[in-house]
Amino acid sequence: MKVNGTHYRSLWWDDAKGAVQIIEQRLLPHEFRVHQLDTLDDYAFAIVEMQVRGAPLIGATAAYGMALAMAQDATDANMDRTWDFLHATRPTAINLRWALDRARDLLRPLPVGDRAAAALQLAHDIADEDVEINRRIGEHGLRIIRDIAARKPAGEPVHLLTHCNAGWLATVDWGTATSPMYQAHDAGIPLHVWVDETRPRNQGALTAWELGSHGVPHTYVVDNAGGHLMQHGQVDMVITGTDRTTRAGDVCNKIGTYLKALAAQDNGVPFYVALPSPTIDWRVSDGVAEIPIEERTGREITHVQGAGADGGLEVVQVTPEGTPGGNPAFDVTPRRLVTGLITERGVCDASPEALAALFPDLAAAV
Amino acid sequence: MKVNGTHYRSLWWDDAKGAVQIIEQRLLPHEFRVHQLDTLDDYAFAIVEMQVRGAPLIGATAAYGMALAMAQDATDANMDRTWDFLHATRPTAINLRWALDRARDLLRPLPVGDRAAAALQLAHDIADEDVEINRRIGEHGLRIIRDIAARKPAGEPVHLLTHCNAGWLATVDWGTATSPMYQAHDAGIPLHVWVDETRPRNQGALTAWELGSHGVPHTYVVDNAGGHLMQHGQVDMVITGTDRTTRAGDVCNKIGTYLKALAAQDNGVPFYVALPSPTIDWRVSDGVAEIPIEERTGREITHVQGAGADGGLEVVQVTPEGTPGGNPAFDVTPRRLVTGLITERGVCDASPEALAALFPDLAAAV
Repeated sequence: MKVNGTHYRSLWWDDAKGAVQIIEQRLLPHEFRVHQLDTLDDYAFAIVEMQVRGAPLIGATAAYGMALAMAQDATDANMDRTWDFLHATRPTAINLRWALDRARDLLRPLPVGDRAAAALQLAHDIADEDVEINRRIGEHGLRIIRDIAARKPAGEPVHLLTHCNAGWLATVDWGTATSPMYQAHDAGIPLHVWVDETRPRNQGALTAWELGSHGVPHTYVVDNAGGHLMQHGQVDMVITGTDRTTRAGDVCNKIGTYLKALAAQDNGVPFYVALPSPTIDWRVSDGVAEIPIEERTGREITHVQGAGADGGLEVVQVTPEGTPGGNPAFDVTPRRLVTGLITERGVCDASPEALAALFPDLAAAV
Repeated sequence: MKVNGTHYRSLWWDDAKGAVQIIEQRLLPHEFRVHQLDTLDDYAFAIVEMQVRGAPLIGATAAYGMALAMAQDATDANMDRTWDFLHATRPTAINLRWALDRARDLLRPLPVGDRAAAALQLAHDIADEDVEINRRIGEHGLRIIRDIAARKPAGEPVHLLTHCNAGWLATVDWGTATSPMYQAHDAGIPLHVWVDETRPRNQGALTAWELGSHGVPHTYVVDNAGGHLMQHGQVDMVITGTDRTTRAGDVCNKIGTYLKALAAQDNGVPFYVALPSPTIDWRVSDGVAEIPIEERTGREITHVQGAGADGGLEVVQVTPEGTPGGNPAFDVTPRRLVTGLITERGVCDASPEALAALFPDLAAAV
């Protein structure tokens, strides 16, 4: 999508430099800076420290990381070592594993001398496929928004609520949850988005930055506000992304998503999840019981980063000295709370039958 | 409760200075400073800008504000003007109105010359009554915690979760939701408290400061985390305060409370509200429909205050320049989600019948 009128992806291959370029997302929304990944440690750092974030973008980044490793040493041993090294960076995001598995499955049968070029081409393919998947998710989501708009008085905006940043910054382009928003806005449907702040890392500020850059009306609210807004009829539809969805339709997403799903159910508000198929974990069924939840450092909670009085990035400590912080990064929304899954092949119920019917090829491949 | 070994109330009358002293809560938890209220504007500023906060403390503060006004001009006209002026400071907190009504009802029949002394004595009484009410709430809440502890393996802590600061800083002493915690801890029951950060104003940092000062084990979590914790059996009981509870038992409290109540219900976790009787609004029944919700400035969301690198208070901006923020300060938890109300007269169901049975004198007086 566009930044100051120029189209960017969140990650791209620079042929002249022979290296991947990313947007350094830790500086956003305050500063826009492009950053080059040169070593495998750079890739791991980018994922762990969230220079790149969002399940689809992490998957594409990992694929390029594997390509770099193959260019240096294309042996089976290095391939397996790289798989382990990159997989350990963010255990919850299923796309990471999906991309690494796909690379290893493709590369293993190849002669060692062919692996570097094949790995790089695969990374390009994964990035391009992600863009196309998200574009299609947007088309399917657009129909839902259009239906809601048709039931409202003419000119009254459709009020969406989203949690975290499932935007183009979290993918290669378009975003997942934001793709229907961009397409609805571009189609002239009046739209207003409640943007959850999404503590502790305030990814809502990224969503606000994206939507603001594209001209989509929005309001930034604390994560606590959504229930109240729904009680008072101010939300027509919730749409979030997901970091991993089970074959049964349980949705693992940024911590706090479950609370919004409960509020949506309690108030009869439809709760949709934008779900690219690589985010489906076909080996897992019960999300609450089976998905390991990443516990991150308490400092992410006790300290907050933002622009200081002089515009430079600063960190303030909110809590008393020594306060322990607990920081589970994701939660699981049981499928009973999910109205529908918006995939690149269409919208389906959050059920094992519906997912298997839409993706028989993937369901059978496990 | 104690600060560095010295017992403090959150507000007290200094006879020598002839003025009220408060703890300047906007500097907490980073700095402990006592502040004197000299003018009626000081009182209004203290309430609006949240130098004092919490429904019971706001009520006591307003009573002292009326006493100051009566010392200056004890006419009916000034009494009514002061009522309006102070009532406008925080429209949601019912204790504010309760204290002002109580003062006016007491003072109106008195000769003008007797009003100043009577108003001051009433303020003292309201402050002392609040301490006693909270002590009793603690006794009744302690029994619930003791019952939960008895059902757990010996030595395993009872895990409570609380939202906002319904602590001694929000009352004159003890706190409402925290009073059972302090009493359980002092009684030797092993306890651990999940402290919700409580965006946008991070009152959880005050709760963490209180609990830390008193030695109660606790962990600070973002508001998004509670649902996940409950899904995984890590919360035995939720206990919050309230800014206003209807005669039917609907609970208005800090924004986000409703989301925790939904999660508690979804996971079979008891959800209790510590309710001093002055916080009951006997004239209102349906909380969602009838209670006006204060909308505060968006800057409270887009900017965060904390201690900077050098320890001084600093403010950072989290969002992009120009992002609009929506900031409803409270929400309403329907009574169907409330396990019980812990009042100074005992624990009752959140129902009109149970409240009227426990407070027949107050219910009849409306």
